[in-house]
Amino acid sequence: MNQIETTIDMPMPEAETAVRDALAAQGFGILTEIDVAATLKAKLDVDRPALKILGACNPTFAHEALKIDPSASLLIPCNVVLEPAAGGGTHVSIVDPRQLMAGDDLLALAQDAAARLTNALDSLAR
Amino acid sequence: MNQIETTIDMPMPEAETAVRDALAAQGFGILTEIDVAATLKAKLDVDRPALKILGACNPTFAHEALKIDPSASLLIPCNVVLEPAAGGGTHVSIVDPRQLMAGDDLLALAQDAAARLTNALDSLAR
Repeated sequence: MNQIETTIDMPMPEAETAVRDALAAQGFGILTEIDVAATLKAKLDVDRPALKILGACNPTFAHEALKIDPSASLLIPCNVVLEPAAGGGTHVSIVDPRQLMAGDDLLALAQDAAARLTNALDSLAR
Repeated sequence: MNQIETTIDMPMPEAETAVRDALAAQGFGILTEIDVAATLKAKLDVDRPALKILGACNPTFAHEALKIDPSASLLIPCNVVLEPAAGGGTHVSIVDPRQLMAGDDLLALAQDAAARLTNALDSLAR
């Protein structure tokens, strides 16, 4: 799965705030949030490194995508994954919308979305 | 995008309860919920038919998938989409995990997850 990614010189809570702000500046709101580590601890009593998944959505893009292809609902929102980076700081990866929305009809939208997500992470990269 | 789908003879609120119960019986909890129609109304002031996206996750499968391939976090949870069916009732579609988790290493898990999701919808089909 192709991804758009960067590493930020901040611990996860501060990185999450910065990522939310950078995505908002590109028109993406966060609609969902999963603390994977806490969920797996609660459900399976397993201990694993921190892992958080934010569900990002640009309402204008979502609305257009759904008009072009109603089955785009299977692919909304776009996952933004935060986890501790190997060398310190926080690794952020975003699923590439160009891979999810593979049809020709959605390609222009997916390219625009990918460019904005890349801009968001570029504004944060160390 | 391949999907697992069915139509249920219930309006959306009752269908959502039935789908949640059927997924729970197969080990899938709902971690996220997006009322797409309400979100687009609030953000863009557009009116569109009802559309709800539930984020389903089987913690055991998720834990195994993340051990095999950490980038599986880009594809969790599995979207379960509810919308009014053309002929009445509620159409339910689930993104096929076999399409998302395309690598050989994840194939067995994806097949098992797809079988359980299919069982859940089969238990509800009219």
